[in-house]
Amino acid sequence: MSESGSAADFNASADINPSTNLPEGDPIRARIAQAVRDVREQTPLAQSFTNFVTMNLVANAQLASGGTAAMSFLPDDVLDTAHIAKASYINVGTLLPFYKDALPQIARGFAKAGHPWVLDPVAAGIGATRTEILQSFRFAPPTVVRGNASEILALTDMWGIRPVASAAETASAAETTETAAAPEHTRPAGVEAVDDVDSAASAAVALAKSLSRTAPNGKAAVAVSGPVDLVTDGERTFRLPGGSALMTKITGAGCSLGGVMATYLAVADPLTAALAASALFNRAGQIAAGQSHGPGSFQVALLDALWNLTADEVAASPILAV
Amino acid sequence: MSESGSAADFNASADINPSTNLPEGDPIRARIAQAVRDVREQTPLAQSFTNFVTMNLVANAQLASGGTAAMSFLPDDVLDTAHIAKASYINVGTLLPFYKDALPQIARGFAKAGHPWVLDPVAAGIGATRTEILQSFRFAPPTVVRGNASEILALTDMWGIRPVASAAETASAAETTETAAAPEHTRPAGVEAVDDVDSAASAAVALAKSLSRTAPNGKAAVAVSGPVDLVTDGERTFRLPGGSALMTKITGAGCSLGGVMATYLAVADPLTAALAASALFNRAGQIAAGQSHGPGSFQVALLDALWNLTADEVAASPILAV
Amino acid sequence: MSESGSAADFNASADINPSTNLPEGDPIRARIAQAVRDVREQTPLAQSFTNFVTMNLVANAQLASGGTAAMSFLPDDVLDTAHIAKASYINVGTLLPFYKDALPQIARGFAKAGHPWVLDPVAAGIGATRTEILQSFRFAPPTVVRGNASEILALTDMWGIRPVASAAETASAAETTETAAAPEHTRPAGVEAVDDVDSAASAAVALAKSLSRTAPNGKAAVAVSGPVDLVTDGERTFRLPGGSALMTKITGAGCSLGGVMATYLAVADPLTAALAASALFNRAGQIAAGQSHGPGSFQVALLDALWNLTADEVAASPILAV
Repeated sequence: MSESGSAADFNASADINPSTNLPEGDPIRARIAQAVRDVREQTPLAQSFTNFVTMNLVANAQLASGGTAAMSFLPDDVLDTAHIAKASYINVGTLLPFYKDALPQIARGFAKAGHPWVLDPVAAGIGATRTEILQSFRFAPPTVVRGNASEILALTDMWGIRPVASAAETASAAETTETAAAPEHTRPAGVEAVDDVDSAASAAVALAKSLSRTAPNGKAAVAVSGPVDLVTDGERTFRLPGGSALMTKITGAGCSLGGVMATYLAVADPLTAALAASALFNRAGQIAAGQSHGPGSFQVALLDALWNLTADEVAASPILAV
Repeated sequence: MSESGSAADFNASADINPSTNLPEGDPIRARIAQAVRDVREQTPLAQSFTNFVTMNLVANAQLASGGTAAMSFLPDDVLDTAHIAKASYINVGTLLPFYKDALPQIARGFAKAGHPWVLDPVAAGIGATRTEILQSFRFAPPTVVRGNASEILALTDMWGIRPVASAAETASAAETTETAAAPEHTRPAGVEAVDDVDSAASAAVALAKSLSRTAPNGKAAVAVSGPVDLVTDGERTFRLPGGSALMTKITGAGCSLGGVMATYLAVADPLTAALAASALFNRAGQIAAGQSHGPGSFQVALLDALWNLTADEVAASPILAV
Repeated sequence: MSESGSAADFNASADINPSTNLPEGDPIRARIAQAVRDVREQTPLAQSFTNFVTMNLVANAQLASGGTAAMSFLPDDVLDTAHIAKASYINVGTLLPFYKDALPQIARGFAKAGHPWVLDPVAAGIGATRTEILQSFRFAPPTVVRGNASEILALTDMWGIRPVASAAETASAAETTETAAAPEHTRPAGVEAVDDVDSAASAAVALAKSLSRTAPNGKAAVAVSGPVDLVTDGERTFRLPGGSALMTKITGAGCSLGGVMATYLAVADPLTAALAASALFNRAGQIAAGQSHGPGSFQVALLDALWNLTADEVAASPILAV
C-alpha cells in the first residue's frame, strides 16, 4: 500500500485567519531557518525503510533539500546505518511478509539507542499485517508521526490514545462539552484521507503528548498533512497553509515530506523539523504549480524548488498559531 | 522481470485503412468519452500488485488520468482494499519468491468476490516461477489482459487456448484453411515483443472469448500493445494507431497503460476500458513526442498530456474496426 | 541500502594534466565510438538485479543509451534471461533476506556459463548480509566492478586483495616505499564515498588484475566513480574528468552508470565498456547541468542527453592516461 494523492480542497486556506500568523521575529522562524541552513551545510544522512512506489522521490527530495539518503529493508543494515545516520524514516506503505518481524526489531533497536525517527503510518487500518506492525510501534514509538488525518485517527485509535482538545478547540468550543470526545471517522479509503485535517487535531495533540513521554529528549511532534497542514508538539499547535492541489496528483508528495522531516530531524528538534519540512513543501508546491503544465512537469519543478528555496524563504512561510 | 520498450515500427499505422475508422457518432466513442469523464469526476481507486521498476509511473499515470492509486503485495492488504477499489491491476514483472502463493490466493479472492482486474503477463514464458503463477490464473482468470504480442501468444499457449480466426482474418483468408492454426512464434526476448501485433490477433480473440465465459458480467477484453494496438472483446476487434516510438524508449509505457486500463475498468465495461486507455495513451504519446527532446522530457510530457487531454479528444482518436 | 550522491568536488578536474589526454586517433577512442554505435544498432538486452530505489532510472538510462532492459530478482528468471541477454548488472543496494541465497546462486550460474556481468558493491562494508553476499562473489567474480572509492577499498579488503601500486603511483612515489601498502580508509559513510578516487587507485588496479584471472576471456575492468572517474583493466589506468556536482544531488547517477556499463559490456570488452559508459555520463552530466535549474530538471536533461549524444561526441571526451 503506498501513498498517492487525495483530491483535497487547497482553497481551505482561505478560511484561515491570517492575523494568527507568527511574527517575523518569532524564535520558531529563526529555528526553521537554522534547520534549513544546517541541512545544506552538514548534508546529514537520514536513512529510510519506506515503500517501493515513492522511495525514489523520497531519496531525491532528501537530496534536493540538502541531505543525503540511504534506503534499506534489513534490520542488520538499518541498525548498522543508525550509527552513522542521525535520524531515520519508516513508512509502512508496501509491506512484504518479513517486515512483520523486521520492523518491530528495528523500532526496538532505535528505542534502545535513543535514535530519533519519523513514522509515516500509510494506510493505517488496512490489512492485518500492517495493523500488527503499527501495534508493535506502540512499545517502541517514533519521535515524529506524519500522516493524513485518517491515518492519524486510525493510529491513535489503534494505540488506545484518547484524543484531547487542543487549546484552540477548547477555546472555540467553550459552550460545548463534546469537543474532547473521540472524533467520528470512517476507515481510510485506501491511502486517501477521508477525514479532514481539523478532525484529527485533538488526536494529533494527544498523540504528540504521548510520544513526548518516551522520546529521546522528551520532545516529539505530529504533523497532519492536508490542504492546510497541522503541526503540534502537544503543547503548541500550528496550521501551515500552502502547497498545491497538484501535490495530490503525483504519488509520494506525503512520503517525500515525511522523508525530508527525517532529514531535518537529523539537525533539529522534532517540532522545528516538522514545521520546517511542512513549510518547505508548501512553498515549493506553490512555486512548482506556477511553473508546470500538469503532474509530470510539477514533480520536476517541485524537486527544483526544494533545491532552490532559501532558508529565509522557508522560514517566512505562513505559520498560523492556534 | 519488468517491461521496457521494444523498438517497434510506429510507421506501421500507414498500412491501416482509414476508411474503417469508427464514425464520429459511434456509440463506442460516446462510451469512451463517458469513461474518461467518469474517472475525472469519481476519482476511482484502482489498486495494483505490480513490478518494482515501473510502479511509480503506473501510480502517476493513474493519478494523471484522474484516478487514485494504491500499491500492495500482501494478500491481506490487497483483498481488504478490494472492498473499496472497484478494479485491480496485476503485473508479474519483478517476482519475489512469496508471490508464488500470494498471487494465486489473490486471484482466487478476486474470482470469489467477482472483482474485475487487469492482468499484465510481463515476460510470459520466462522462468518457472512466472509460469507457475500464470498457470494458476487459468482457474481464476482476469477480466482484461493487456500485453505485447509475444506475451499474449505465450499466455494463450500456456492456458491451452486454441487461437481462432478473427472476422478480419477469416475474411482475408477466405481461400485458405491455415488461419485458425496456432501462429508460429518464438519465445519472448526478455520483456520485448518479438512477434508483431497482428500475429497475436486470433490468439487475442480466442483469449477474450475464453475470459468472457468466466468474467463477472460475461464481458472481457484483450489488448495487444504495439505500434498499432489491437483491442478485442472476442466479438469485435479494433485497431488503434498512434503513440510514439519514444514510448519504447522509456520503461513502463505498457505497464502504465495497463494500470490506467484498471482505472477505467473501475467505471466502465472491459471493452470500453481497454479502448479508452489505449486511445488516451496513443494521443498522449503523440503530443508528448512533439514536445520533448528525448526520453527524459518525453516521460514528463506524457504525464502532462494524460492530465490535459479532454474526454472528447480521447474519444476522437482513430479506432479502426476490422 | 541504495546509492545516493556524495557532495564531491567536481573542480578536482582542474588538477588533471590535459597533456595526458589520449590523442584523437587513439584506438581506444575508436573502440568507444564503436561500442556506442553497436548499442544503438543492436539494442542489446542487459538484465539487472538491482536496488529498488534507482532501478527505474537504471532501466531508463539503459534505454536512453540505446539498449534494452529487464529487471529480475529470482534465480530462475535471471538465469533463464542470461541465455538471451549478453551481459548482466548486479547491485547490492536494497537487500531482501532471500538475496543471501539467490545472489550467490546467480553468480555461480553466471560463472558456469561464462556470462559477463558488472558488480556495483553499493555500501560495501555495511551489514552482515551484504558482507556475506559480497564475500560469496569472491569465488564467482564479476567481469567489471563499478563503485565509489570507499566501496572499491572495502571490497578489495574483504576479498583479501592486496593493493598494488599503479604505474603512476610508482612513478610519483619513487622516493618512498609506502605506496604499495594498504591505503588508510574509514568504513563507508552509508552509501557515500568518504575516500577520494585516487586513494583507491592501487586497490582498483589490483582488483582488475585479480578479476582478469577469472574473467570469461581473460579481460576485466574496474571503474571508480568520483569527480574524476578512474578506469583500469589492471594494465592501463585512465582518468576521466567531467560530469556535474548535480549528479550527486539525484539518486542513482552511479547505479545508472553501472547499468549502462553492462549495456556496453553486451557489445564490447570490459575496458571499452567501462570507458564508454563513464565518458557518456561525464558528457551527459555536463550538458544536463547547463540545461537545468535544479536536480529535478537535471535528471530529465540527463536522460535526454544520454539519448542525443553521438558516438563521436562520447569518444571525444577527455580520457587521461596515467
